[in-house]
Amino acid sequence: MAAKALDGIRVIDFSRVFAGPAAAQILGDMGADVIKVEAPNVGDEARYYGTDKEGLARCGGVGPSFLAFNRNKRSITLDLRSQAGRDTAFRLLEQADVTLHNFRPGTMERFGLGYDRVRAENPGIVYGQLSSFGVEGPMRDIGANDLSLQAHSGMMSITGDPDRPPVRVGSASIDLHAGLALATAILGALFHRQRSGEGQFVESSLLRSASDLMGYFYTEYWTLGIERGRAGTANHLSVPNQAFPTKDGSVVVISPGDDMWKRCAEALDKDSLGGPEYATMFDRRQRRDELIAKITAVTQEMTSKELIERLSAAKVNVANVNTISQASADPQLPAIGGVYDFSYRTVQARAVAAPFAMQGTPLDLRRSPPELGAHNREILAEFGFSESEIDRLAQIGAHGPDPKAQ
Amino acid sequence: MAAKALDGIRVIDFSRVFAGPAAAQILGDMGADVIKVEAPNVGDEARYYGTDKEGLARCGGVGPSFLAFNRNKRSITLDLRSQAGRDTAFRLLEQADVTLHNFRPGTMERFGLGYDRVRAENPGIVYGQLSSFGVEGPMRDIGANDLSLQAHSGMMSITGDPDRPPVRVGSASIDLHAGLALATAILGALFHRQRSGEGQFVESSLLRSASDLMGYFYTEYWTLGIERGRAGTANHLSVPNQAFPTKDGSVVVISPGDDMWKRCAEALDKDSLGGPEYATMFDRRQRRDELIAKITAVTQEMTSKELIERLSAAKVNVANVNTISQASADPQLPAIGGVYDFSYRTVQARAVAAPFAMQGTPLDLRRSPPELGAHNREILAEFGFSESEIDRLAQIGAHGPDPKAQ
Repeated sequence: MAAKALDGIRVIDFSRVFAGPAAAQILGDMGADVIKVEAPNVGDEARYYGTDKEGLARCGGVGPSFLAFNRNKRSITLDLRSQAGRDTAFRLLEQADVTLHNFRPGTMERFGLGYDRVRAENPGIVYGQLSSFGVEGPMRDIGANDLSLQAHSGMMSITGDPDRPPVRVGSASIDLHAGLALATAILGALFHRQRSGEGQFVESSLLRSASDLMGYFYTEYWTLGIERGRAGTANHLSVPNQAFPTKDGSVVVISPGDDMWKRCAEALDKDSLGGPEYATMFDRRQRRDELIAKITAVTQEMTSKELIERLSAAKVNVANVNTISQASADPQLPAIGGVYDFSYRTVQARAVAAPFAMQGTPLDLRRSPPELGAHNREILAEFGFSESEIDRLAQIGAHGPDPKAQ
Repeated sequence: MAAKALDGIRVIDFSRVFAGPAAAQILGDMGADVIKVEAPNVGDEARYYGTDKEGLARCGGVGPSFLAFNRNKRSITLDLRSQAGRDTAFRLLEQADVTLHNFRPGTMERFGLGYDRVRAENPGIVYGQLSSFGVEGPMRDIGANDLSLQAHSGMMSITGDPDRPPVRVGSASIDLHAGLALATAILGALFHRQRSGEGQFVESSLLRSASDLMGYFYTEYWTLGIERGRAGTANHLSVPNQAFPTKDGSVVVISPGDDMWKRCAEALDKDSLGGPEYATMFDRRQRRDELIAKITAVTQEMTSKELIERLSAAKVNVANVNTISQASADPQLPAIGGVYDFSYRTVQARAVAAPFAMQGTPLDLRRSPPELGAHNREILAEFGFSESEIDRLAQIGAHGPDPKAQ
C-alpha cells in the first residue's frame, strides 16, 4: 500500500452536518485516523437530513448526505453534558494531533475542552473551529447556515433573473467551501508543526467562506463603486458567456477571448457573427443585447447535440445544461478516480471523491461511513483505556445515560 | 514579526485568471515567496477582465478581480514560446519548492516544463496542475470555465425558480473552490515532503471541484434515485429554510431543528404556527406549502428590521437578503481581520483576506499585486543569474521579443 500524506495523524472530529464533516473526511481521505465524536442515541444530525422515513428505510437508516461526507471515519458516542463524557473527550484530545468542531463560540470552553485547556496538556495540537461569523467581533454569537450567508454575503442578490427576486444557489457551496478552507488551515498548521514543533488554533467560518467566494465583487464595489445584480445565466465579465436555447434543451457557450470568439463566430454563422463590430472583448460587451439575439437565432435552430459537436470541433468552450441524473452519469468523473463505491449496512452507495488528487500519496476509501458509536470500545482501548475503565465509563454515562443503548 | 507557516517556501506560479492565482495567493498569504510568471506585454488575462476602458483607467490599468487575487506575489515576464524563456523557467523550477499552472494538459510538457522533466532535476518539487476535466480520461482535452461546469455538473439545474429555466450561480464558486482544493493538495504534499523528502504531482480540476460541491445530490440520485430540481430560495432539506417577503425587502428564515422551529413559531405567531401539526421536521416538510403561506402572511406585515430583531432575539437563524453594497459594508468582516487595504499604482484598493485564519502563524498582506514584470531582474538575481546573464536573457527574448518593452 502506498504511503498516505497523513499516515499516523490522529484527528478528533466533534463537528456535525456538512462543513466540518467534509473537512474531516478530506483529512481521512489523505490517510488520517479520524475519530468522529457523536452525541449518544442521535449522533450527527446529518444522519437524518434531507430525506423522509421511506428514504431513511431505503438508505440504511441515514440520509444520502451523511453517506457523502463521512467515509474514512470511526464513530464514538460521548455525552459531553456528562463529566465522564467530557473527561473521556479530554483524554482523547491529549493524545491527538488535530481536532475540529463547529459548536457555537464558547461551547467547547464551557465543556472544559477549549483550546487553552487542551494545549496546556498537548501543546502540539492543531485545534480547528468552524463558526458562522467568526470567533470574535460583534456578530460572533449569531447562528447561521449556508442560506444565511448566501443572503448576508450578497450571493443571492446576484443569482437569478433580473426581473425576479433573488434565488438561492442550489448546493451548499458556502458550507463546503468553509470545510475545505478549514482543512487547508489544518494542513498548513501541520506543516508548521512539523518544522517548529508548535501547534496552534486555526479557524474558518461561513462568513470567511462566503466573503472569499464573493470577494471580487466586493473589491469591484470598494474600488470602482460598481454594484452587480442578477443576469440570468449571463455575467458581466464577457460575451458570450451564458446559456442559449436549442431545439431540445439549452447549452452554455463561452468565448471570453477574441481568438476563441473568432472560431465560435465562424462555427456558428460567419455572416451574422463574424463582423469587425464584434471582434474585441470590449465590442462584444458593448453590443451585448444585439449579439445575444443573433447567437440565439442560430442556436435555436439546432439540437443541443449538434451545437455541442460543432463548437467542440472548433475548440470553443461549450457544455450541456445537465440535470442531476445526466451529470451524475458523466463518464469522466469515474475515469479520473473521482467516485467511490461502498456499502452501508445492506445498502450499496456511491460518493464523490475529494476535490483534488495526489499522485505520490493517493487518496482512497478505506472505511465506509460508520454506524453510530460502532467503535466505542475499540477507540478507547487504542487510547490506553483499560477494559475495566471502559466498562466503568459506560456505566457512569460517558456514552449517554443508558449504557445498554450503546 | 511572527513566523509564517510557509516561510522560506518558493512557489513558481504559471497560472492565470481566477482559480490558480487564488490558490497561489493563499500560499503567499501563508508566507510563501510566490513568483508569478506572466506572458510578455499582456500578462495574466485577468488584468483586464470584467471592466471597460474607463474602469481600467480608474483602477490603475487593471480590473478589480486582478486586485482581488494577486497580492503577496512578485511578477516576472517570461516568453515560454522562446527557448530563452523556457530555459529560464526551468532554472527557476530547479530551485523551487512548489509550482502550479493551469495550461491545458500537454502544454507544459511541450514547453519542456512537465513534471517528469522537472522532477528529474528537482525530485522534491510539489508540482500542481489545475485543469478543466482532469489530466486523463476521455474529456481531458475539452476546455471549460466556471459556467461550463455549472452547466455540466447540474448545479444550474437546481438553481432558479421552478417555473423558469435554470440560472447561473452569480459568483465563480466552482473556480474558487478548485483553487482552494489545489492549495489543500499542495499543503498536504508539503507536509508529506517534510516527513519523507519526497515531492509529488498533485492536481485539481473544475470537474472535481463542481463534483465536490454537487456530490451529496449525486449520492442521493445514485442511492435513492431522487433527482432534485429548482426551488427558488427553498431547498429540500428542511422547512422553513428560504427567503420570505417583508414590507421593505426580503429576509431568510431558517429553522431546521424542532427546537429552533418552536422558538421561531412563538416569535412570529403562536396561534397560526405553533400547532402540533408542524412540530417535527418531517411534519414541516410534508406540509411545506401551507406552512410557507402562513409564515409569509406574518412576515409581509413586518419590516425586515423588525423581523430580524424579533427572530434574532429568539435565537432563530435569520439574515437580510443583502445587495453587494450592503454586504461589502458588513462590519463583522473587518472586525475579524477579513479585509486588507492596499494601494496599486495610485489607486486605493481593498480585498477580502484568505478564507481561514491561523493564530500561531498569522496570514497577512506583505505586497500589493505586482505590476507586470516588475521584478524581472530582482528575481533572476535571487535565483543565481549573474548581471551579464540577465542582460543577455533580455536581449535574446526571454522576456519577449522586444527587450526595451520590459
